[in-house]
Parts: sequence; structure tokens; C-alpha cells
Amino acid sequence: MSIRRDIRPLDPMESPRFTQISTFGRLPHDQDLSDIEVAFLGIPFDDGTTFRTGARMGPAAVRENSRLLRPYNMFVESSPFDQFNVVDYGDVNVIPGSFMHTAEAISETLGAVVDQGVIPLICGGDHSITLPVLRELSRVHGGINLIHFDSHFDFWDSYWGQKYTHGTWLRRSLEENLLGTVAQAGIRGPQFTPDDLQYSAHQNITLQTIKDFHVKGVEGAMDTILQAIPPDGPLYVSWDIDVVDPAYAMATGTPEVGGLTSWQALECIRALVGRRLVGMDIVEVSPPYDGPGAITSLLAANLFFEGLSVMAKNHANGILAYPRQN
Amino acid sequence: MSIRRDIRPLDPMESPRFTQISTFGRLPHDQDLSDIEVAFLGIPFDDGTTFRTGARMGPAAVRENSRLLRPYNMFVESSPFDQFNVVDYGDVNVIPGSFMHTAEAISETLGAVVDQGVIPLICGGDHSITLPVLRELSRVHGGINLIHFDSHFDFWDSYWGQKYTHGTWLRRSLEENLLGTVAQAGIRGPQFTPDDLQYSAHQNITLQTIKDFHVKGVEGAMDTILQAIPPDGPLYVSWDIDVVDPAYAMATGTPEVGGLTSWQALECIRALVGRRLVGMDIVEVSPPYDGPGAITSLLAANLFFEGLSVMAKNHANGILAYPRQN
Amino acid sequence: MSIRRDIRPLDPMESPRFTQISTFGRLPHDQDLSDIEVAFLGIPFDDGTTFRTGARMGPAAVRENSRLLRPYNMFVESSPFDQFNVVDYGDVNVIPGSFMHTAEAISETLGAVVDQGVIPLICGGDHSITLPVLRELSRVHGGINLIHFDSHFDFWDSYWGQKYTHGTWLRRSLEENLLGTVAQAGIRGPQFTPDDLQYSAHQNITLQTIKDFHVKGVEGAMDTILQAIPPDGPLYVSWDIDVVDPAYAMATGTPEVGGLTSWQALECIRALVGRRLVGMDIVEVSPPYDGPGAITSLLAANLFFEGLSVMAKNHANGILAYPRQN
Amino acid sequence: MSIRRDIRPLDPMESPRFTQISTFGRLPHDQDLSDIEVAFLGIPFDDGTTFRTGARMGPAAVRENSRLLRPYNMFVESSPFDQFNVVDYGDVNVIPGSFMHTAEAISETLGAVVDQGVIPLICGGDHSITLPVLRELSRVHGGINLIHFDSHFDFWDSYWGQKYTHGTWLRRSLEENLLGTVAQAGIRGPQFTPDDLQYSAHQNITLQTIKDFHVKGVEGAMDTILQAIPPDGPLYVSWDIDVVDPAYAMATGTPEVGGLTSWQALECIRALVGRRLVGMDIVEVSPPYDGPGAITSLLAANLFFEGLSVMAKNHANGILAYPRQN
Amino acid sequence: MSIRRDIRPLDPMESPRFTQISTFGRLPHDQDLSDIEVAFLGIPFDDGTTFRTGARMGPAAVRENSRLLRPYNMFVESSPFDQFNVVDYGDVNVIPGSFMHTAEAISETLGAVVDQGVIPLICGGDHSITLPVLRELSRVHGGINLIHFDSHFDFWDSYWGQKYTHGTWLRRSLEENLLGTVAQAGIRGPQFTPDDLQYSAHQNITLQTIKDFHVKGVEGAMDTILQAIPPDGPLYVSWDIDVVDPAYAMATGTPEVGGLTSWQALECIRALVGRRLVGMDIVEVSPPYDGPGAITSLLAANLFFEGLSVMAKNHANGILAYPRQN
Amino acid sequence: MSIRRDIRPLDPMESPRFTQISTFGRLPHDQDLSDIEVAFLGIPFDDGTTFRTGARMGPAAVRENSRLLRPYNMFVESSPFDQFNVVDYGDVNVIPGSFMHTAEAISETLGAVVDQGVIPLICGGDHSITLPVLRELSRVHGGINLIHFDSHFDFWDSYWGQKYTHGTWLRRSLEENLLGTVAQAGIRGPQFTPDDLQYSAHQNITLQTIKDFHVKGVEGAMDTILQAIPPDGPLYVSWDIDVVDPAYAMATGTPEVGGLTSWQALECIRALVGRRLVGMDIVEVSPPYDGPGAITSLLAANLFFEGLSVMAKNHANGILAYPRQN
Repeated sequence: MSIRRDIRPLDPMESPRFTQISTFGRLPHDQDLSDIEVAFLGIPFDDGTTFRTGARMGPAAVRENSRLLRPYNMFVESSPFDQFNVVDYGDVNVIPGSFMHTAEAISETLGAVVDQGVIPLICGGDHSITLPVLRELSRVHGGINLIHFDSHFDFWDSYWGQKYTHGTWLRRSLEENLLGTVAQAGIRGPQFTPDDLQYSAHQNITLQTIKDFHVKGVEGAMDTILQAIPPDGPLYVSWDIDVVDPAYAMATGTPEVGGLTSWQALECIRALVGRRLVGMDIVEVSPPYDGPGAITSLLAANLFFEGLSVMAKNHANGILAYPRQN
Repeated sequence: MSIRRDIRPLDPMESPRFTQISTFGRLPHDQDLSDIEVAFLGIPFDDGTTFRTGARMGPAAVRENSRLLRPYNMFVESSPFDQFNVVDYGDVNVIPGSFMHTAEAISETLGAVVDQGVIPLICGGDHSITLPVLRELSRVHGGINLIHFDSHFDFWDSYWGQKYTHGTWLRRSLEENLLGTVAQAGIRGPQFTPDDLQYSAHQNITLQTIKDFHVKGVEGAMDTILQAIPPDGPLYVSWDIDVVDPAYAMATGTPEVGGLTSWQALECIRALVGRRLVGMDIVEVSPPYDGPGAITSLLAANLFFEGLSVMAKNHANGILAYPRQN
Repeated sequence: MSIRRDIRPLDPMESPRFTQISTFGRLPHDQDLSDIEVAFLGIPFDDGTTFRTGARMGPAAVRENSRLLRPYNMFVESSPFDQFNVVDYGDVNVIPGSFMHTAEAISETLGAVVDQGVIPLICGGDHSITLPVLRELSRVHGGINLIHFDSHFDFWDSYWGQKYTHGTWLRRSLEENLLGTVAQAGIRGPQFTPDDLQYSAHQNITLQTIKDFHVKGVEGAMDTILQAIPPDGPLYVSWDIDVVDPAYAMATGTPEVGGLTSWQALECIRALVGRRLVGMDIVEVSPPYDGPGAITSLLAANLFFEGLSVMAKNHANGILAYPRQN
Repeated sequence: MSIRRDIRPLDPMESPRFTQISTFGRLPHDQDLSDIEVAFLGIPFDDGTTFRTGARMGPAAVRENSRLLRPYNMFVESSPFDQFNVVDYGDVNVIPGSFMHTAEAISETLGAVVDQGVIPLICGGDHSITLPVLRELSRVHGGINLIHFDSHFDFWDSYWGQKYTHGTWLRRSLEENLLGTVAQAGIRGPQFTPDDLQYSAHQNITLQTIKDFHVKGVEGAMDTILQAIPPDGPLYVSWDIDVVDPAYAMATGTPEVGGLTSWQALECIRALVGRRLVGMDIVEVSPPYDGPGAITSLLAANLFFEGLSVMAKNHANGILAYPRQN
Repeated sequence: MSIRRDIRPLDPMESPRFTQISTFGRLPHDQDLSDIEVAFLGIPFDDGTTFRTGARMGPAAVRENSRLLRPYNMFVESSPFDQFNVVDYGDVNVIPGSFMHTAEAISETLGAVVDQGVIPLICGGDHSITLPVLRELSRVHGGINLIHFDSHFDFWDSYWGQKYTHGTWLRRSLEENLLGTVAQAGIRGPQFTPDDLQYSAHQNITLQTIKDFHVKGVEGAMDTILQAIPPDGPLYVSWDIDVVDPAYAMATGTPEVGGLTSWQALECIRALVGRRLVGMDIVEVSPPYDGPGAITSLLAANLFFEGLSVMAKNHANGILAYPRQN
Repeated sequence: MSIRRDIRPLDPMESPRFTQISTFGRLPHDQDLSDIEVAFLGIPFDDGTTFRTGARMGPAAVRENSRLLRPYNMFVESSPFDQFNVVDYGDVNVIPGSFMHTAEAISETLGAVVDQGVIPLICGGDHSITLPVLRELSRVHGGINLIHFDSHFDFWDSYWGQKYTHGTWLRRSLEENLLGTVAQAGIRGPQFTPDDLQYSAHQNITLQTIKDFHVKGVEGAMDTILQAIPPDGPLYVSWDIDVVDPAYAMATGTPEVGGLTSWQALECIRALVGRRLVGMDIVEVSPPYDGPGAITSLLAANLFFEGLSVMAKNHANGILAYPRQN
């Protein structure tokens, strides 16, 4: 148990949900990580975007739309704030116009977080940010097992001569040997060529396209994925919100029709109970393309809560992200 | 048969759907209820809202988006306007800032409606209005059997010392002994604690969470519910529109991801054929959060029509809301 | 193989997706159809609309939201631009305020297209435009087999004395003997009377309502339809976008809740592999009612791509729209 | 004084502004015009539109956004509901797709209104409706003096062979000899040719372009106009809402930048105190292009109230629209 | 000079404007007021609203849209953060549904702020909150001189029996003898009766309607007001954002056309240089009614900055809000 | 006169304004510049943006909203398409993520345009693109006289170590000696420090802040500017759309309240009659932040037309952008 104060979200019975400073889950904003197990970290970089921009506004919008989160998860049967101290760490000070400098800033900020044994919940920004995230996680945990939820493969070698974009990060991560076993989930939409399918197979990636999800159901598709993932290895989950159908998540940079429902997305995360989650990201939430209800940001906030609930349940069952946590 | 004029919606072949005064279903606005079987009644009170406001604009928006309704229901096989005289009664003159005075106004207005043997279709406003509605209905019909569609339990004892809000009405209704058998459908989302689950069980409420709907289908979940409800007792159905997923119903005060589809919501109502429906409400439609297509209000209008169709079919089969109807 | 230049969409690696003139799929805008197999043709007429207008803005919006299309279809396993030369022909110069003159303009423009053996992808506009389209197609191909995706029957005889509207085109098409076998898919929503159901049966139309899709799945419903359609006859597919649920396609003139998902719509088109598609339309996309993500137009663009993919696969398998194509 | 009941808007102290059926100014909806002096009449026809459609939704939106009107005009010093009985007559049953039939319907409906000596406040719809309106008014009052507020001349002879559109009504009105003296106010924006300027001069129209308003002020420009208008003749004011700048009135079919402010528009109407106003229209409000605050419809509602206030003040001063009124 | 750290907004050269937690002006969120001169305080209560709700979301939106503020005011020639330590204090924990309890909470929270000699910048919420604010200020400073910018008088005695609403606070303030000299600026729009004008005169209020501003200019109207206000007395400025025209500030509960421009609003505040400002509020910003650019919240943020700049300049010139400040 | 075809916008009498491919002013899209005098060129680069992104979507939106332009300017008395052949050249193939490569692409594309003696109308993208534009123009014309309309100085040396952003281009242009005389117009909003004012003075820039425009009027402020600009030198006008007030132009990256009206903006351009305009840009239109009426893009389209009208009038008067034109 922590010797530090028991950190809780602001009590809505004391301060109504629409009041007070906007932080993730109405948790304290704090950069002191002593006795903290999980930290929400925004990385509002979107220069890696190839179509609609705006993901730089993602962390602010996800925070604002996380005001409705409550502490008990009835389907996972988990009370994360009883298990963990969680804070909103704030954002990485990204450097717009330079992926290279931003990657350094991510490494520095996130490095300090993970070196203190804190599990990051990372909110993009565009998908290019996952590369430096994986660098830090693999530095600490070794080769990271990855489940990549997305409608796109993100295998491109470069765009317009740019090696670091939201469509190339996974190829870079493979080239840099940051990854253990990799699975991809939800892929769909028009492709440039069949090459990416072959590349995926060539890399021994376990692929479950959106068709697998629609035909086999979430349970079936996630079973296939989880059988491929080493059960005890460090697992990172990266969510491009565009894996969800635009009806549920229209606010994203390269939307593809035919995707997951919100319930299916939640079920995908619940399937991870029992796995050693060392972090999770949700990227490509682009608030200018949301409607007045901001339902994309609302969904992202709930997916973070679902991940947090799974982490807490695992932790309660002795499945620790960091071996030294106990 | 009525001795009164045969009331029909405005004929779109004579006056196109976008013309003329906005009433529910393009029915006459009338407060004379002689020979009327069903009345649409707005209760635009939203001071019971704990997060996003705006439900006071619900009745106006539902009326405006009911212009597309047509008289024959092909799935229920019911022509309600052949069976019933239906009017738009207008709204209760609510008293913003005072639930107590509003509850009195609801009792007075609705009391007069039900005392004339008219079935109310009630459009909120927030969910707090269902408490005074149930008071009137139980006064006339005795203990009301209730199916409560919602993503939230609404069991809270109070908010900030307020006993009457959109999150407390059901506890109040139970405390006031207004209810017979109760079922809850579609519950989901983060909870404060597991207590509400226990309270539900303690109250002998038949609970079908959203997971039951997703796993068993609407038919399975509704079967469970309907087996619990006394087949001949007076049945009231209360719809918090947030039971539907935000993709289909973003315009609501406390949206929760992972909900019903629009088709599932329609099917839930169709499952009520054969039951003695004494009224129905749809609450928490908050138009400022709808998109330009106003699809939440459109859905609410269609759910009312589906309820009306079921009522008409039942009536044709001799299942009368009021024993004296014939 | 074509002796003409190999026509391709603009390469996003050279010109990013958000750059350059907005044409369908970033294909060339060209009215020279020599060596062209497929042409996208806009018909922005919306005077046949009975409720919300705006479908005249459909072609421009579908073009703008087709920028994300890529050339390989992984589920159909088809590369249409390897198979076909495709261009954006531009729009018919419609005559607002006069269906009669517009119908003549459609006949003239589309007539020239089909007389050159080019398959049209037709973007409405409202559904009234399908009547003159069918006139031209039947002139060239004989009686057209039709699959009509819609939430409405479109069997009305007239509106306000107008014989040519978006609700009467199908009755006119039947009266003008333009059609071979007809199927209707996705019908739902309140009806005026049961008459349309009887008319459908009387016309030997194969009807699969939305309930058939929800109960039997897309595969089951489409099987029923395809068994009725002569396998070798010319097949035209007409999509009223309102067959899709408003959550996925809110931008339409007479939305009906309870419809297809985007994935189901895609699957409906994929079921047409092996059928001799001589054209396809998507109508009733009304951009003013879309949200900021423009997901209705995005869906329409993808449905066109899915149709094009099926056409290309068929063509590769020797199933030619025009016998003289080879 | 009227022998009929004293008609007042619904009292917001009894029924809050957001409650009850949506009528203009929360006045009764009534087609009995006995003892009525002024009637609000919607004409939701928009087939005369040449660019963005949607004006058919104008009357419903103006009604909804007239809920904030109150009975005393402090700048005109007029209490119209003390002076007049005013009702919302409803809408003309327009015939979409046919200007000719719609014009007949307008003549019939409006003819009955003016034949009862009632002053119409007419809400479009597009500007084509003003032609049949002027026919009826000139039938009753003789040649109508017209002040035409617009950013466009509306002098075109035809569009695509159509003689009756929102850009031709004024030429038609001149050709049909319906008009007395004519003034145009606020004209601006790119023109096809200088011809319209010459046509305006040739017709002895008093032209005050938007530049006159910006340079001389509303007072100066209106003085020029009012000196040209016979002081005792019947005066009709026709407002195309696009005369106001899109910042204040974005919801219109052919917006032109550089227009009047909302205050200037109000001042234009106030300048008419002392003139014999026999009617007024506001056209081209196209609600689908409004933002969430619906400020264009709100402005239109206020312009109607300003006109009504001027009519009432004039009436109090013995300036009667109909000689027989007293 | 302060012995405390020199408080500055987050440096956008270090952390870009779109990064980090959303506080007013990117200032620290802190409830320790030692060595603090000015505090931003949100009061997100909107149960006093009589038409469109949503002002409870005001403080969050104003914070989010204050990210563009920079530290030097070139027109006032003032650098407030060189002069003052300013923090974002957070929000009052309002009690939705109860003005009485909320008023107590405001008194408690604001009382602590002003008792420490800190100048409040108060962000509503609806206008009802100004009453308890004035109670605290008059307790500390004595009778408060008030300039009330609004399109409405707010003199109503009660609404539906409710004495404390956004339309009654000023009458209550006068009755409670909280005020010294009062001026009202920008009043316009339809009134219930002429009574409010008489009440204003009877209370010796200096009234400058919007017409005064349009006719005399801001300088002329503000001169009239400032001549009435005792030059050395404590001055409070209360801004209902609806005094600004809906084109500039559509996101408000009871918008009135014909208002101030944004520049005029800024000039009104600049006219206060040399006056002893003891606080300022901006109320009635209702974010659900803003467009995608959120320009109403942006304007409110800038009006706060303008007020802060004037306060800082005055302070530099020895005009202290609290005598003990030095 | 040109020996080439007489290029005209599509005739709206033949093809209604909402039909056909979206190009600027409905002009031909052509990259053959023989006999062309003016070309519209999009540069959709927005990686230089420091707050809200989205300007990459500017050219597409300005094209779409230029459909209403007509050929005669009644206030400038100019018919540009009688004077000039104008085409839409398409967009520069920008390289997202790299200003350096994009600047090269701009130089290459624009260099070819200006080397053919064609006047560019340049549509951003963000303001960083003006630097490479000025490089090409100064290469051809020598030191460029610049009028810079903006609410910001754009004098910053770097952001986060980035030397090329939308806030540094003017300093770079000065450092690179690309400019002759410089004037800045409309500057306002909070500043970092007074330094930019001093830098402006130090650079001998003629500064007319927004206050000059509000106090002296457009005519007065533009007189001051034009007296400073050499009458016969090459003049370039660069418009950051944020110089216009957010009420008229909300869709921009760093909006500042208190700006120009749309009419004032038009008048600023009209004041340039008689000056040797060698090009013009409008930048920072960010369509995701526009409302449903797209009025910011509409304004930009009209400002381009006004500039084109002035260029045509000048050309008619023998004032040639390129000496060799005649």
C-alpha cells in the first residue's frame, strides 16, 4: 500500500462534474510520481498526419470528456482507484514541425515516467508518437509485445521522403527491433497494393482484419490474437481510434467506414484481463471533426478507463506491469 | 368508435411535411380530450440534470423531427390512427428552478389527462420528471410495473443534498411505493461503486445489463424481463435515451458508450405487444448536443411511434390501458 | 488492354491527399471517353425531394470525401484501376425547377456515356434521377434487373400532383417497362398504408425488409435477392443512402432509424461479385445535414469504390457489362 | 377596439419560453381571422433557389426562434399586441416542384387573408414567392410601392429557361405592372454584367447600394429611398435576409459578404414609421446553414417584430394599411 | 513586490499553446493565494436561466479558449503579469438545483478570496450568480458602484415565483442595498412593458441603451456613464455576454440582435483606465450554442484579459482595488 | 488580346452553380499558361501553424465556396475576365512535415508561373508559405513592396527552435532582403512584449494597427499606408484572414477578436486601384473551424475576386504587373 495520500477523482457529490479544472478523470494534475502507479500523459503532436489534422487537440478534448468517468467498472469488476494511485501528468512539450525533436522530448518525459515504474496511459496526437513511446518501453521492458488496433497497417516506408509519420511508425518500430510478437486488429479499407498484407505475413504478424471481427465476433478474433501473444511478456496496446467506425468515432484524421462498434472496442480491451499490460495509447482523436456531443473524445476517455480497469484487475491478481511493483 | 371527428395527422399530400405548425406527428394541438385515447405531453424540465443540460428543449425538437412519421407500422402491423384518436396536448407549464413546484404542475396537468382515461406519451425533460408521472399513474392504476431503459441505475439517494434529480427518481419511486415489479434494461458504464448492483438485487429488480442485450440479443434479454413482469398488470416504460449508443443518440446529458443500436431499441418496444401499456416516456433528449441531422430527436419520435403502434395493436386485441376503455 | 494512357488516381506520395482539384477518387476530370471503361457522373438535381433538401450538393461532397480512396480492395481482392480506365466525367447540367428538362439532359449526357460502352457510377441528387437513368440503360441493355436499396418503397403515384419525384420513380419505371426482375432491400420505417407491401408483391418484387437483414444477416438476405435475379442479365444497383442507419448516414433527406450499418452496406455490394453490373447509383446524400466529419459522403465514396471493385473483379473474370467489352 | 378576445402571446411567467407549441411569437395558431389585424403566414417553397437550398425550413425555424420576443418595443415606442390582434395563420400548402401550382396556392391562401383586411407578415421560402404575394396585394391595394432589401437585383429574365425563380421575381413583378415606385437597398456582390444597374435606372428604381449604406449611414440611405416613395401609397417591404452580412445571417442560399449589420437592418425598418405598410416579407432564411445558435432565424424573428412594431405605431397614429380599418 | 515566485503563464516557446492542462491564460491552478493579487474564479451555475441553458459549461470553455492570450496589451500599454501574480483558483462547488445553497457556496469561496485582498475575475454561469458576488464585495468594500453591460435590464421581481434568477439579480441587489451608483449599458431588444425603463430612472440608474452606443460611439456612451460613477469608489463591472451582438457572441442563453461589436466591447473596458476596479464578471457564455471556432468563449477570454490589463495599469498608477495593497 | 481561347467561368445559365468540378471561380483547371495572365494557385501547407491546424484544407474549401462569384465588379467597375485569361493552376505538391522541401516545391511551381509572366493569386495554407512566395517574386521583380494584413506581427525569430513557421516568415523575409517598403495593417490582440512594436519601427515599417482602422476608417488608414508605398514599385498583398474579426472569419488558426468587418476588408483591397499588384495571397483559412455556411471560405473567395478586379482595372489603365505584359 502506498504511504502517500489516497488519490481519488474529485468527488462529484462535492464538486459537480462540470466544475473545476479539466484533467483526465478529474484526477489531480501532478508531476510528482512518488507512490503513483499509473499516469495519464498527453502527447499532442500531429505533424505526422497525412490527411485531416487536429489530433494535437486530442488530449485537451479527451480530458474534458472524461468528466463522466466513475470509479467502478461493473463488467471488469474492478475499482482501479482502490488499486492504484493515478494522476494526470500533463503533456509532453512537443515541438511542432519537428518529429525528431519531439521524439527526443517524448523520450525524455516518458523515460522519466517509466523509470519510476509508472504505467503510462498515452493520449495522442497522431500515431507517429508511438515509435518513441515504444523505444522507451522496450528500453525498460525489453521487446514489447504489441496489439495494434487500427484500420490501417502503418507499414509505409516513407511519405514524401518523410520517414517518421503516422503511416510509418510500425515499420520503423520493427526495423528498430523494439517489438516482440505483434498482432494487428481491425485492418480494413482500400489499400494501395496487396503488399502490406504480404509484409504483415512476412513479419509473422498475427492479422485479424475487421472481417475477422465481424465474422468471428470480438471473442473469436481476440482469441486468435491472444494465442499468439506470449502470456507473460510485456504487452502494449496501441489504439488508432479510426479502428472504430466513423459513426462512433468520426473525429479522426483518416476515417474508414465499416469498423468496430463502441461496445466491440470495449470488449477488445476486456479480453486483456490476465495479460501484463505495460502501457496503452489512444491516438488520432481529432476534435475539430467531432460533433457537438464530442462522442469520439468520450469514447477515447472510456477506452482509457477500460484499460485502466483491466490493469487494476490484473494488478490485484498479481500480474504486475513492472516486476518491482508489489 | 368515437363520436368525435376522426383525428388524423395532417395529410402530406395536401400539406407537405415541412409545412405548418410543429406538433407531434403533425397531429392537432388540442387540450380537449373528449373521445381522445392517447395524448402526447411534453414536460420540458431539466433542472434535475447533473452534467450537460438542454433537455428542456426536448419536446420542441422531438415535435419538429416527428414530421416524417406515417400512419402504418409494417413490423408491428398496426395503424394507430385507425385505432385511436391521438392529439398533441402541449407541454406542462414547468417551473424552472423548482422541482417541487414542477412536480405539482405535472401532477395537475397529467392528472387531468389520466383521469379522462387518456394514455400519455410523455416527452422529457430530464428523468426527474418520471417520479411525478408515476405518482399520477399509480394513483389511477395502482402499483405500476416498470421497465426502465437506461444506461444508469438512477438509484442515488441525493446529489449535493438534492433529493429530486435525474439520478434519484427511481429510488424515490420505490420509497413512495409507486411501483409493482421493476425491470432495468441496458445498464452500463462506469459506476460509483458495486452498491447499485446490490441495491437493484435487494429491490428484486430484474436486471438486464447492456451485456445481456449484446450477448443474448434483444429477444433473449426482453424475454427475461417480460417473464418477470405480471402479464396483466399496468405497465409503464421509461426510456432514458442514453440507453441507446451515442452514435445513434448523441444528444443527451450523460452519454455512455457501448449502448443499443436504433434497431435494437425499436425491437425492445415491439417485444411489448400483448402487454397492457398505460404510458411511456422518453427523457433526456438534449437537442443542443445533436448534430445537424437531429437524429436523436428523430429516433425519439420513432420510438414514440413504435410505442403508439404497440398500444394500438394491443387495444385492437382487447388489451386496454384503462379497463373502462372499450 | 487500352491503347490510351494508363489512367490512375493522383499519387498521394507525390501530391498529398488534401491537395489538388477535387474529383472522384482523385481521378482525371475528362469528357473524352475513348478507352474508358467506367465514368463517375454527378446528377445534382434535388427538386424531387419531399422533405429535407440539399442533395444537389451531393456530387461535390462525395468527390471531396473520396480523397482517401486507395487502389486495392483487400476484401474483394480487386485492383480496379489496373483493370479499368476510370474518369470523373463531371455533372449533368441539370435544370433546377424542371424535372422534365432535367430528365432530357440526363438522357442526353448519360446516353452519350453508355453509347460509348462506359459503365456509369452515378451520384445524385435525389432519387427521381434514377428514372431517366434507367431509361437510358434499358435502351442499351434491354430490361434492367434492379436491386433497390432503400428504406422506402418509392411506389407512390404522385405527390401534390407531381408525377416525377423521389417517391414515384420506381412506379414510373415499372409503368414504362424499363425493368426486368426487381428486388427491394432494407425497407422499413412508418408507411402510409399496407398498400405498398401489396403493390410490391403484386409486381413480383423480391422484398427483403430491414428485418430480413437484421434476422438473416446480409448473407441470408442477399442470397434471397440474388436467387431471384437472373444471373446473366444486366444488373443495376440503386442505393438510396437512407437505407443505411442515420448514425452512419445522417445526411439524407428522409432519414429512417433502424437501418444497415456501414459494414453491412459494404457486404451487400460484395455479394454482387459474379453479377453483370451495368451501373450503380447512390442518391439522396444531402451534405448540409452531415456533421463536421462528413461521414455520409465518406461512406458514399466508399460504396462507389466497393461497386467499382466488384465490377473490376467481374470484368477480370470475363463478366462484361457490355458484350462488346473485351 | 376588437369585439373578440384580446389576443396575446403566451405569458412566459405562466409557461416558460421554451414550453408549448412553436408558433410565431408564441401567438395562437388560428385560421379564423375575424377581428384580426395582422397574421404571420409561412410560405415554405424553395424550388426557386439557384444555389443552396433549405429555405423551405424557414418558417419552422423562424417560429422556433421567435420564442424570445416580448411585447414592447422600446426604440419604436410601440406595443403591437395592445394595438393589434395578431395570429399565426400557419403555412400555405405549397406544391414542391411546381411554382405555378404554388403560386395559385399562395394566391388562394393570401387572397383570403387580405380580403379580410388583415396585414400579412410573410415568411419564406425563397424570393420567388414574392411575385404571387405582390399579385394579391396589388389586387387589393393597387400598384404597390416596394422597398426591396437584398444583395441581388433579382432582375434576371430566366434561369435555365425557368421564368419563375428567386432571381426573376422582380422583373416579373415589373412586367405584370404590380408595382408603383420601387427602391432597392443593399445591393452588392459580384454581378454578371453592368446591365442590371442600367435596368434598375431604366425602370426608375431608386437604388441605394450597400456602399450608400456604409458611406451615408442607414439614415442617409433610407432618406434617399423614402423621398422617392409616395408618402401615402401602400408600401410593401421585401427582405431577402442576404442583405444582412453573413456574419449575422449565414443561413441563406446565396450569401454575399460586405452586408448590413443586424442593428442597421433594424434601423432600416424603424425608418418606416409614418409609412402605410401593407405587408412585409422576409425570405431566403435557410436553416440548414445556420449555426447552433440559429442566429439567422433569430434575426428574422426580430425583424418581423420590428415591422410589426412600426405597423402598430402607424396604426395608432391613424395610418391604416386598409382604409376600412379603424 | 511579491516575495513569492514570479507567476507567469506557461511559456508557449517551451510548451506550445495547445499543450498542458487547461487553465485560464495557462496560469497555475492554485488555491494558495498568498502573494496573489488577482484570481480567476469560475461559478458554473445555470439554474437561473430562463431560456437556453448551458452556461454551466462556461468556465471550462473560457479556460480552453484562453490559450491564445499573451502577456502584453498594446492598446492599454499594460503588462499585467509583470504587475500582478494571477492564478486560476478553480470553480466554486455550486449546488445544481438550489440557488440558495449555491449562493452560500459562492459567499464562502469568494469571501475567502476577497478577504485575502485578491481581485476576482469571475466567470459564470448565469447572471444570478452576480447577486452573491456583490454581497461579498459590498461586505469588503462597502456600496459597490456597478456598470452593468447587458441587453436586458434584469429588473424582474420573480419568474414563476422564483426570486433568484438571471433576470432578477439586479433588483435583489438594489433591494439588499449592496450598490452605490449604478449604470446600465447596451440595453435593447423587445421588452415586456415600458416599466423597466421607468424603474431604471426611478433607481437613478444611468442608462445608456445600445442606441446610445450606436449613435454616440463607445467613447460618448462611456463618458456619460463614467461621469455618473464616483471616480474613487469601488467599481465592479458585470458583463452579460449577450450585450455583444450574436454575430460575435452567439453562445448565450437569451441572445438579442443589434448589439455591440467585439471591438466596441474591448473599448468599453479600456475606458475604465483610472477607475478603481474591484472585480469583474462575464456571465451567460453558453458553450453548447457556440460554433466550431468557439468565438464566444474566445471573446470572453479576451474581455477578461482586457479587464486584467486595465486593473494592472491602474495598479501601476497607484489606483488600488484594496487600500491595503501596495 | 490573347490568341488563345477566351477563358470564362462556367456559365451558370448552362450549368447551375452547384454543378461540375470545384475550381476557383468555376474557371478551367489548367497548367498550360500560354496566353494566361492570372493563375489561382493553392499551397495547402499548414505545418507552420502554432495553434489550431487545418489550413491545409483551405484551397479546397475556397474553391468550393467560390461558386457564387460572378464576372462584373460593380464597385471597382471592372470585368476581370474580359481583361484577363484566368485559370486555376491547381496546388503546389507540398511536403507535409518539411517546410524546407515544401519551400523548394513552392519555388519550383511558382517560379514556373511567374517566369511566364503570370500573376499569382495564392491561397494558403498557413502564413509560412509567404516566404518562398516572396523569394520567387523578388527574383523576378526585385525588392517587393508589401502590405501585410494580419492581426499578428509575425516577427518572431523562432518557435521551439523552428525558424520557419507562420509567426516568423516576415522576419525571415526581411533578413533575406526580399522586401522593399513594408506596411502592416490591422495588428491587434495581446502581444508577448512591446518588442514587436519597436522592431516594426526599427524596420521602418508603416504600421496601422486595428485601432487606426477603427478610428480613422479604412480610407484614412489605407491612405497612410499607400503614401509610404512607392507608387510604381511591385506591390504584393498578403492577407492573413485573421485580420478580419472572428464573427466574419472564425475559421482560422489563431483568431483575435476586435478585427475588420468583411466590408472593411473589401474596401482595403479597393484602395489598391492604381497600384502595380504583382500578386496576392490569402492564408490561414482553416475550414474545420468554419460553421455550416462556410462563410470564412466565402469571404476569402470574394477577397480574391476583389483583388483580381483591381488587377484587371489597373491592367486596363496600363498599370502592368510585368513590364512585358501588353
